[in-house]
Amino acid sequence: MSEEVLKYLKENQDNLLEKLSQFLTIRSISTDSVHIEDIAQAANFVVDYLKDIGFQSVQLHETTGHPIVYGEWLGAENGPTVLLYGHYDVQPADPIELWDSEPFTPEIRNERIYARGSSDDKGQVFMHLAVFEAYMKTIKELPINVKICVEGEEEIGSSNLYEVLKEKKELYNADFVVISDSGMVESGQPTILYGLKGFTGLEVSVTGPNRDLHSGLYGGAAKNPAMALSHMIASLKNNDEVVTVPGFYDNAEELSAEERQLMNESPGEDYTKTIGIIEETPEKGFTAKEHTMARPTLEINGFYSGYSGEGIKTIIPSTATAKISCRLVPGQDPDRVQKLIATHLEKVAPVGVNVKVNRFPLSGKAYKMDPNHPLLKIAAKSLYNGFGKEAVFVRLGGSIPVVEMIDRIFKIPVILLGFGTPEDNLHSPNESFPLESFYKGMKVLVSYWDEVAKYNS
Amino acid sequence: MSEEVLKYLKENQDNLLEKLSQFLTIRSISTDSVHIEDIAQAANFVVDYLKDIGFQSVQLHETTGHPIVYGEWLGAENGPTVLLYGHYDVQPADPIELWDSEPFTPEIRNERIYARGSSDDKGQVFMHLAVFEAYMKTIKELPINVKICVEGEEEIGSSNLYEVLKEKKELYNADFVVISDSGMVESGQPTILYGLKGFTGLEVSVTGPNRDLHSGLYGGAAKNPAMALSHMIASLKNNDEVVTVPGFYDNAEELSAEERQLMNESPGEDYTKTIGIIEETPEKGFTAKEHTMARPTLEINGFYSGYSGEGIKTIIPSTATAKISCRLVPGQDPDRVQKLIATHLEKVAPVGVNVKVNRFPLSGKAYKMDPNHPLLKIAAKSLYNGFGKEAVFVRLGGSIPVVEMIDRIFKIPVILLGFGTPEDNLHSPNESFPLESFYKGMKVLVSYWDEVAKYNS
Repeated sequence: MSEEVLKYLKENQDNLLEKLSQFLTIRSISTDSVHIEDIAQAANFVVDYLKDIGFQSVQLHETTGHPIVYGEWLGAENGPTVLLYGHYDVQPADPIELWDSEPFTPEIRNERIYARGSSDDKGQVFMHLAVFEAYMKTIKELPINVKICVEGEEEIGSSNLYEVLKEKKELYNADFVVISDSGMVESGQPTILYGLKGFTGLEVSVTGPNRDLHSGLYGGAAKNPAMALSHMIASLKNNDEVVTVPGFYDNAEELSAEERQLMNESPGEDYTKTIGIIEETPEKGFTAKEHTMARPTLEINGFYSGYSGEGIKTIIPSTATAKISCRLVPGQDPDRVQKLIATHLEKVAPVGVNVKVNRFPLSGKAYKMDPNHPLLKIAAKSLYNGFGKEAVFVRLGGSIPVVEMIDRIFKIPVILLGFGTPEDNLHSPNESFPLESFYKGMKVLVSYWDEVAKYNS
Repeated sequence: MSEEVLKYLKENQDNLLEKLSQFLTIRSISTDSVHIEDIAQAANFVVDYLKDIGFQSVQLHETTGHPIVYGEWLGAENGPTVLLYGHYDVQPADPIELWDSEPFTPEIRNERIYARGSSDDKGQVFMHLAVFEAYMKTIKELPINVKICVEGEEEIGSSNLYEVLKEKKELYNADFVVISDSGMVESGQPTILYGLKGFTGLEVSVTGPNRDLHSGLYGGAAKNPAMALSHMIASLKNNDEVVTVPGFYDNAEELSAEERQLMNESPGEDYTKTIGIIEETPEKGFTAKEHTMARPTLEINGFYSGYSGEGIKTIIPSTATAKISCRLVPGQDPDRVQKLIATHLEKVAPVGVNVKVNRFPLSGKAYKMDPNHPLLKIAAKSLYNGFGKEAVFVRLGGSIPVVEMIDRIFKIPVILLGFGTPEDNLHSPNESFPLESFYKGMKVLVSYWDEVAKYNS
């Protein structure tokens, strides 16, 4: 039956691209309240689209921030139900002068569509809507039951999503979730992303004297906060990239030989070219692929103290501050890790300075599915059908807080079916999305829904 | 004979203060070329004053920057010759809004004269000129031979002084030097400053990836420059405040028991009050007075890397930079110490990052006189005569590059006879100079010249 659907998609290729362009012209930047009307317009674009193609109960769930679009089509008797998550808000376009075309005037060039949100995430949300349109306009039904959740605050931390999903848990509940808000390891290489890291972050400030001091008059009397903090930071991780905070690795899930093989076989970057480093420096005993994808990390995101201008200013700085964040693997509890680091920092602080640790509230557990899960096997097959190439299975060193949130509330599988590429410039000037991903990705989705219709959780 | 001189000073107290005020109204800020006329005016104020009271060969030694005032009175047959150094330039007055009275409109309040330059150094230069005036107007001669060197670039590094003194070495040469451009350990406590520290500084930059990276995507592949630099910096000094750079203490002059006693007996600050620290943290085995005055120090003046805004930004910074400077004691060679630190930093740098060390050219050796030197004994006696209180003998953790420069060129004793107080706000808003220092200090100078006339080097 999918032949008709695929035919519709092919015949309407230009119309769909035109309709996507309309979606992309809306300046739905969630960070800035000046765009409140644009946000409403983008939400209504999704509402109207869903209504047009026959979704029911289409509604806006208002929040103290931006509304969440809900819609459902539940006509697949005995079929499984999928919750489809995406977001209609986008990042700001600054610095605008670095764009080669207007960020909100979509332009096709180099076989890509250039516009803010083209990849993250309007383009990928639109692909789903277009595929549903194709089913409804041809065979008048979907192979599965679908619930839609498209929010408008992903770029500002999804701060109201949790409450709405908790409160309307029954409404949003499903057998599994599909999210298309991620990417492939390289352009044209279909990718199954089956794991994400957790996250925790904190800030440590060391204060010595009540003002910057003359180093000649006070050097030898006052502890130097920048030196004190250097010692404290150095005590967090050794030069083998092993975190030396006691208890940090407790309960961290070990990497199986099978997973290590999957990771090491996946295509990787040549880091000396892509990021210009001299050599990879993974944790001792692991490859860079293993460490980035599936071993915990601890990074200093910022360190600032004293004078940063030209030349020298002979002061003992009054304060020194560092920002620290960790990417965690399954088994590690973010709050516990955060506390271990805070306690360790306070313990190793030298005498003569005050130490204040600010534990950032934003945190999340790692997410991981069994790479052999049937829903992923179906995804891999569908990706092959769309791209004509075997999918690779990877985990991501990054975190997608929404995944962890949905996992926590519904405890159902979350399938990440992302079509972005490393060249998409997410959050940067000249964001774009490859037309190949747009067209082939829709073929993947048709294949997936057709196959998944037989899935029985 | 000094009675007449002292009487003259007393009777002309108000006139002299009025004349000092004229000097202080001149905006001779050396940093800013807009003040080029004011600089000339201040230099000429000194020239005219010297001529008025009978100095000979009064002239401006032009430089590529601001001129140096030279003058001499060499009528003391068989008497020693002193080179008197000072400067007529001042620091900028910014931030002007923090001044309680106009910085270039001197105002007397709280028994102090408030104006930019009142303490550093116009006030102290003026005291010398006024004392010479008193001699010349009363007994028509000075007890010693005097050469004057008052420069206009002290606040911008005395960059042309060295060349002029080298070139005109014979002209400026003397038996010893007197500089009144420093202070007393506390208001009303006469102080013999018999040692200064040397100085050297450098900057180390660590570069990893060619841009800030997403910590989720690249954590585990790329060495974190902020972490790398923290390890490197921590390897420079331990928490006992002992510098751990190999060879750092080589040849550093040991502190004698006598000197330690002198230092520990000198009045000191209660650091918990003055700079708000929890406790003193001197080098293990030394007191804070000993360490600040006479043990080498190594301080981090600045450390900056990555994100310093609110909250967290999950990046691996591309670079990290630290500024490091040392205060050195006699026996330590600044260039050698600088090189030792640079070599050490390069050696301890972890793999995966590039390290670049920038060795700042500005450096200087420590300066120290034997505290039992007769010229200092005479100074101590004169201070007692002026202030009615025994002088304390201290060394200063700071550096006065001019002292090292003069020492290097002439290899003659440099006597630091300073009358400033810790409350003078040098380089800050509301600079002032106590009238007590002004009047009693002039008594000290009269006593000093009278006594020193008998000195035979």
